[in-house]
Amino acid sequence: MSGETRYADWIAVDWGASRIRAWAMRGREAVAGTETAAMDLDREGFEEVLVNLLDPWLGKEPTDVLVGGLGTARFDLAARDAPVPAKPLAAGLALATTSDPRLAVRVIPGLQQSSPADVMHGDTTRIAGVLAAEPDFDGVICLAGAHSRWARVSAGEVVSFRSFMTVELLELLAASSALSGSIGDGWDEGAFVAAVSDAMSRPEALAARLFSIRAEALIDGLSGDAARAQLTGYLIGAELAAARPYWLGQKVLVVGPQPYLDAYMSALSAQGAAPIAGDETASILAGLSAAYETEKELAP
Amino acid sequence: MSGETRYADWIAVDWGASRIRAWAMRGREAVAGTETAAMDLDREGFEEVLVNLLDPWLGKEPTDVLVGGLGTARFDLAARDAPVPAKPLAAGLALATTSDPRLAVRVIPGLQQSSPADVMHGDTTRIAGVLAAEPDFDGVICLAGAHSRWARVSAGEVVSFRSFMTVELLELLAASSALSGSIGDGWDEGAFVAAVSDAMSRPEALAARLFSIRAEALIDGLSGDAARAQLTGYLIGAELAAARPYWLGQKVLVVGPQPYLDAYMSALSAQGAAPIAGDETASILAGLSAAYETEKELAP
Repeated sequence: MSGETRYADWIAVDWGASRIRAWAMRGREAVAGTETAAMDLDREGFEEVLVNLLDPWLGKEPTDVLVGGLGTARFDLAARDAPVPAKPLAAGLALATTSDPRLAVRVIPGLQQSSPADVMHGDTTRIAGVLAAEPDFDGVICLAGAHSRWARVSAGEVVSFRSFMTVELLELLAASSALSGSIGDGWDEGAFVAAVSDAMSRPEALAARLFSIRAEALIDGLSGDAARAQLTGYLIGAELAAARPYWLGQKVLVVGPQPYLDAYMSALSAQGAAPIAGDETASILAGLSAAYETEKELAP
Repeated sequence: MSGETRYADWIAVDWGASRIRAWAMRGREAVAGTETAAMDLDREGFEEVLVNLLDPWLGKEPTDVLVGGLGTARFDLAARDAPVPAKPLAAGLALATTSDPRLAVRVIPGLQQSSPADVMHGDTTRIAGVLAAEPDFDGVICLAGAHSRWARVSAGEVVSFRSFMTVELLELLAASSALSGSIGDGWDEGAFVAAVSDAMSRPEALAARLFSIRAEALIDGLSGDAARAQLTGYLIGAELAAARPYWLGQKVLVVGPQPYLDAYMSALSAQGAAPIAGDETASILAGLSAAYETEKELAP
């Protein structure tokens, strides 16, 4: 790159379920950001979208591009086994083959666990970000998202984790089930907190409670706002019941997109936990930055 | 109809979630049957499909057409409150307005319950059919289907019932979730029974177990057949845990379409219940016949 002014030292990319976000980075600082919608992309589709998105930032020589996020599962890279030390979490990057010579794409690897069988991809980036900001973190990180994850982190290691399909289930039910007609766009916090508590006291009745939302809408005139809050509360309540060993009596940090961050925070608070809310974008950027720096340190 | 030979005395129709079935009836005997695919119809769409389907059986004068099934919810008829006596279940028909003068359409009304809030439409026909065949039935009828229902029937009354979204949830997850790629078309009975038992012992862990199907497929090479059986077993097991007060120590009759009839029978048997399998088509025809006869008795 000698003799040429480069826009970015490197580029940070988060490949999420519905959008791709990218930041032009100078060191640890994001000097510009951009994003694009990206549903149901395969790996080739991702590379095409990525090249178009990053084009204004690319020079003639290869720019380092570090990719994290849910979509990295599509790279079919080997995930490492938990427990795994915290620092290498942000390293061990795999170089991905891309057809455009202006990109040198590296992908944050996933993490897997044999018993109970579990796997995560994108969430390793957010965990690495939390640990980069607070290397001595000791407690539980609740990573909200389409698939939420509870990760026990201690002495610089991810000790164990468990994944839940809660929000994916919620969005499927709201969009494509017998409940769809009853679910509004608004929110009713009281109905949410009551539904969480109800679900935690008898979590096995989930499928019956879900149907009762439709029945209450038909018979009792349950509002669309209350119906959305109840649906969310029943599903998150069932998750909290199953994840109780993770959060009960622990330091809990919740990281995730809205409106789910607020929902998890509120549900945990109502159960007497004292969760701390983390900044999702900051944790992604910190995780990608830590990976970039580790990579540079290790480079010959 | 004097002077004209009529093909059918009346026509029985079952409006299901994915197909409409019709039978040309002489008394209680079905002399011909026909069916057509019918997804996502509204009431007008239903009438159009119905007229085309029944055309060969219609004369110039109006023919009585009795309609039951899930789709009758679209008629927006008032449902009656449970508990409700068994015999009127197959009467109190509502005359539906149709634009074709060759049809006199009557619809079996639904049933609703205020606490817990619940509602059923098509399943009233199957209950009426069971009671027409066995008027002294005393026990629980498990109506399998997209929404399953457990109805307590005693002394000729539907005393109470509870609905579950189990199979709708199952089909959504198999078709449109992160699990879709892991779910095959076959079956593994051992995996199913183990999953039912696992779900019943800790029903609150449902959302985690669902994700573990994907993780086991990725890490342990879980087969598609076993994945389908596990998914079905986790969901039906959670339902059995919640519906335990309905089936434990009771006479249980299961009525429903395959493959779900076999799944509910197998799950209940594995839990030590001694369920009896009913014939679904026979119960629908018996329910519609009982409704037709009651209507004729009451006619001036």
